[in-house]
Amino acid sequence: MIGRLNHVAIAVPDLDAATAQYRDALGASVSEPLPQPDHGVTVVFVDLANTRVELLEPRGEESPIAGFLQKNPNGGIHHVCYEVADIRAAADQLREQGARVLGDGEPKTGAHGKPVLFLHPKDFQGTLIELEEA
Amino acid sequence: MIGRLNHVAIAVPDLDAATAQYRDALGASVSEPLPQPDHGVTVVFVDLANTRVELLEPRGEESPIAGFLQKNPNGGIHHVCYEVADIRAAADQLREQGARVLGDGEPKTGAHGKPVLFLHPKDFQGTLIELEEA
Repeated sequence: MIGRLNHVAIAVPDLDAATAQYRDALGASVSEPLPQPDHGVTVVFVDLANTRVELLEPRGEESPIAGFLQKNPNGGIHHVCYEVADIRAAADQLREQGARVLGDGEPKTGAHGKPVLFLHPKDFQGTLIELEEA
Repeated sequence: MIGRLNHVAIAVPDLDAATAQYRDALGASVSEPLPQPDHGVTVVFVDLANTRVELLEPRGEESPIAGFLQKNPNGGIHHVCYEVADIRAAADQLREQGARVLGDGEPKTGAHGKPVLFLHPKDFQGTLIELEEA
């Protein structure tokens, strides 16, 4: 079912500092900061040869990563995103296997404008998994 | 400097259960368990279209992931591994930028038989980064 690793998302307390580390110390190609008010984050894309790292800074009090940063003040790896061909078929297959889809189970429009859903970390080794329709 | 994302490593308390979740619920291609006594883990490779997830179960009391699993009993994302062309040049560049290389700073032979080193998580947004010479 899962295809490519779309991205690894890293929550960071200071987006400018994180961007500078990836650009200057790690020599990576980084984007400009991209505010995503609908998703409660500002993101910088780090383009790797085969996939992407997304550096996420919280935006607004309702940011979905605010709680994570309270627990991990230095930041940390927040989730991984795997691509699937058909997100509704994926959700059905996951539920049949006993895995829990977060929220009401309906795909939402994600930060890339494509349908996404999130899986319960307790069903996947403490890892928050996003699925995105490719 | 950094090239491909070589792998995302996920520490898991129960390798059989984790492998079954990736194989059956996520429909991924998984390897047989591969004991790596020199590295204190048993690993299952999850092959994705563009990179790999490595499921790591501790092996022995001195396992380098034992402490992580004590803090995160369900498991969690342990590190990311980026490829570099020249690991000694990478280490020099990192130190020049003020980043800390873990241990004595000398590359070690990693689980894939190639030179690796690890960077201090506090210098990289709480993320443990492995560099592997490609």
